[in-house]
Amino acid sequence: MSHGTDTLLLQLFTIFVWAKVFGEVFERLRMPAVLGEILAGIVLGPYAARIIDPSDSIISLAEIGAIFLLFTVGLETSPSDLIRLGRTSMNVALAGILLPFATGFAYMKITGETTHESTFVAAAMVATSVGITARVLQDLGVLRSRAARIILGAAVFDDILGMVLLAVVVSLASGNGIRWLHLGVVLAEAVGFAAFMIYVGPNVIGRMKPGLQRLSTRDAPLVLALSICMLLSVAATKIGMAAIIGAFFAGLIFSDYSPEWNLKPRVHGINEFLSPFFFFTMGARLDIHVFSKDVIVVALVISLLALVTKVLGCGAAVLHEGWRAALKVGVGMTPRGEVALIVALIGLQMNMVSQRAYAIVIFMTAVTTLLPPPLLRYLFRDDMPRHQIAVPEEEERVQIG
Amino acid sequence: MSHGTDTLLLQLFTIFVWAKVFGEVFERLRMPAVLGEILAGIVLGPYAARIIDPSDSIISLAEIGAIFLLFTVGLETSPSDLIRLGRTSMNVALAGILLPFATGFAYMKITGETTHESTFVAAAMVATSVGITARVLQDLGVLRSRAARIILGAAVFDDILGMVLLAVVVSLASGNGIRWLHLGVVLAEAVGFAAFMIYVGPNVIGRMKPGLQRLSTRDAPLVLALSICMLLSVAATKIGMAAIIGAFFAGLIFSDYSPEWNLKPRVHGINEFLSPFFFFTMGARLDIHVFSKDVIVVALVISLLALVTKVLGCGAAVLHEGWRAALKVGVGMTPRGEVALIVALIGLQMNMVSQRAYAIVIFMTAVTTLLPPPLLRYLFRDDMPRHQIAVPEEEERVQIG
Repeated sequence: MSHGTDTLLLQLFTIFVWAKVFGEVFERLRMPAVLGEILAGIVLGPYAARIIDPSDSIISLAEIGAIFLLFTVGLETSPSDLIRLGRTSMNVALAGILLPFATGFAYMKITGETTHESTFVAAAMVATSVGITARVLQDLGVLRSRAARIILGAAVFDDILGMVLLAVVVSLASGNGIRWLHLGVVLAEAVGFAAFMIYVGPNVIGRMKPGLQRLSTRDAPLVLALSICMLLSVAATKIGMAAIIGAFFAGLIFSDYSPEWNLKPRVHGINEFLSPFFFFTMGARLDIHVFSKDVIVVALVISLLALVTKVLGCGAAVLHEGWRAALKVGVGMTPRGEVALIVALIGLQMNMVSQRAYAIVIFMTAVTTLLPPPLLRYLFRDDMPRHQIAVPEEEERVQIG
Repeated sequence: MSHGTDTLLLQLFTIFVWAKVFGEVFERLRMPAVLGEILAGIVLGPYAARIIDPSDSIISLAEIGAIFLLFTVGLETSPSDLIRLGRTSMNVALAGILLPFATGFAYMKITGETTHESTFVAAAMVATSVGITARVLQDLGVLRSRAARIILGAAVFDDILGMVLLAVVVSLASGNGIRWLHLGVVLAEAVGFAAFMIYVGPNVIGRMKPGLQRLSTRDAPLVLALSICMLLSVAATKIGMAAIIGAFFAGLIFSDYSPEWNLKPRVHGINEFLSPFFFFTMGARLDIHVFSKDVIVVALVISLLALVTKVLGCGAAVLHEGWRAALKVGVGMTPRGEVALIVALIGLQMNMVSQRAYAIVIFMTAVTTLLPPPLLRYLFRDDMPRHQIAVPEEEERVQIG
């Protein structure tokens, strides 16, 4: 074996173990393990203790980890739920986009920023990153609660709308005005993709079933599921959506066949191995030195606005279901992630955004990522299954066998 | 998502699907799927059709895939078997090293090569690469047959002895004579590592059991198993053994606890996802242009010798169990892999070996890798379970639940 392999294996081992140790400590402090995994990345990463600087290979593993995380979440989501809760989810997504954008834009203008800079920061405040929330809800065992299903549905719409908004902002910033035709195509593609996956996808798999049984390949259903997971991830990026939304849809269209094909434990194994690398890398990327004192004040205000407006906006859309439900959905939609960072990065590359605004967006992403998990744990405490099960797949196994 | 992610996901999807399609075709032709996966790499890789050139990230995935392949094989091997068949395995390994080395050296000297070059080529003919054989036997469902267990045991001894031989060859080639003390240390480390894993390892896991149940981490047994798999892989490389032998030991010490903790389906999931990348990459690395006509003649002879001497040597050691058993074990020990390539590479870097000898070793590796799988399939045809099971984990689930 080459020297490169040694290094890779050592990083693999070190990151996995540290992520899990931090996770265990957090669990014992009654906080979500995922926060511990992110903190492990911040503490040991290149901007703090400098013990582990994730290599390109680890970053690739992390990206694949994000794919499989959303794939397992999709596997636990039923398409019929998504359809039934469609209107509610859509309202949640819409309100959760308009309010943060308007507020963020107004605040940045008031502090004297340019229109372009204000637009970019406001746009970065929009897109929910459902990865963190999904993992927390999965750890709590509440993915099947009504609020969780609304959140997952809203995340899909949020991604579609966020993408359209990004297209608008980029058009405006490049001085071309809005290209309505292009926007229409983007929107149609995204809606068509989502609708196809929810309404048609499961039937396609059902029709493939007889053919699958004739295949000689060992464990053909799992091979098919993995292939489609990767295919839809690629397809999603091709029409400008996040790859993880494609993976979520892949899980969704297999969810009805998962018990029969025993998919869950196998996919869970992949997820259990890869997802620590995703969260560790997320933490390791956080440069804690970018913040000077005056940046921090604006960043704190923007972060607070990002939190409050998302909770208010999304919560308002489900307020008719009661305060508790509104809070659950609102907080669940709060985390921002890689989309916010990408918006900021595009702004930076187009010279529309200063390093300062970029730092603000990073800070906002960190705050909105780190605060919701403990809140979610508190809000969903009554939905948690009574007896925590050490091996979650045991349950399903008993149901089938 | 960045452009890099798009490319990664696309390669991921393409390689996985092509590997599986080739595998399916091979299965239908009654040949092992793994051969198809390797051929997919040769055909689509950078030296033939140039459709897919595996990126560094894919190569890393491939290396992790090799780790998990041997980890699952270890999970299906019982430590007590390895102990019971220890003497037989040791004899197989020893005979399978001496005969190829002596024959290879003699032939190269006869064709007029220098002593150094002959020594290196002969040394490259020694080390068995158990990955291919393990996968073929796993696909056939015969990992628990007596012959399979002898092969896996012999592969462990083979790795230990092969490593010692490499140290000897390098010492000789560098003109320092043999450093006996260094050799003794290398040997003691390897034997100590193996003995500890086989005799003590399972007990250590047993003692950790009560502590595991007190952990708050979700699915703690799987997390422990994955951590130890990576730890032992790193440890093996630190004492100069192949990482995959460390992973095999990790599987071995967990094998008795695997049913209770439901490890197999989860680890199988990881393996099912990653191992196609290992075999595809193995094929993609094969430069088919390195062979001129006169090289091919010598390469063919060396390949034949490598095949015949391994089968004869290893087979002779179990001849008292009958011709059939001797052939199974002999053919199972035939594949050479990355160790052969590394030996040749070291020789090349030390200027002890010509490009020509390097090409010969590559050719020998290819031949000894590609021929055994169909032979194994034929030889083990009576050991195969009557009813091929579509989802192998079903079987275990029935036993437990």
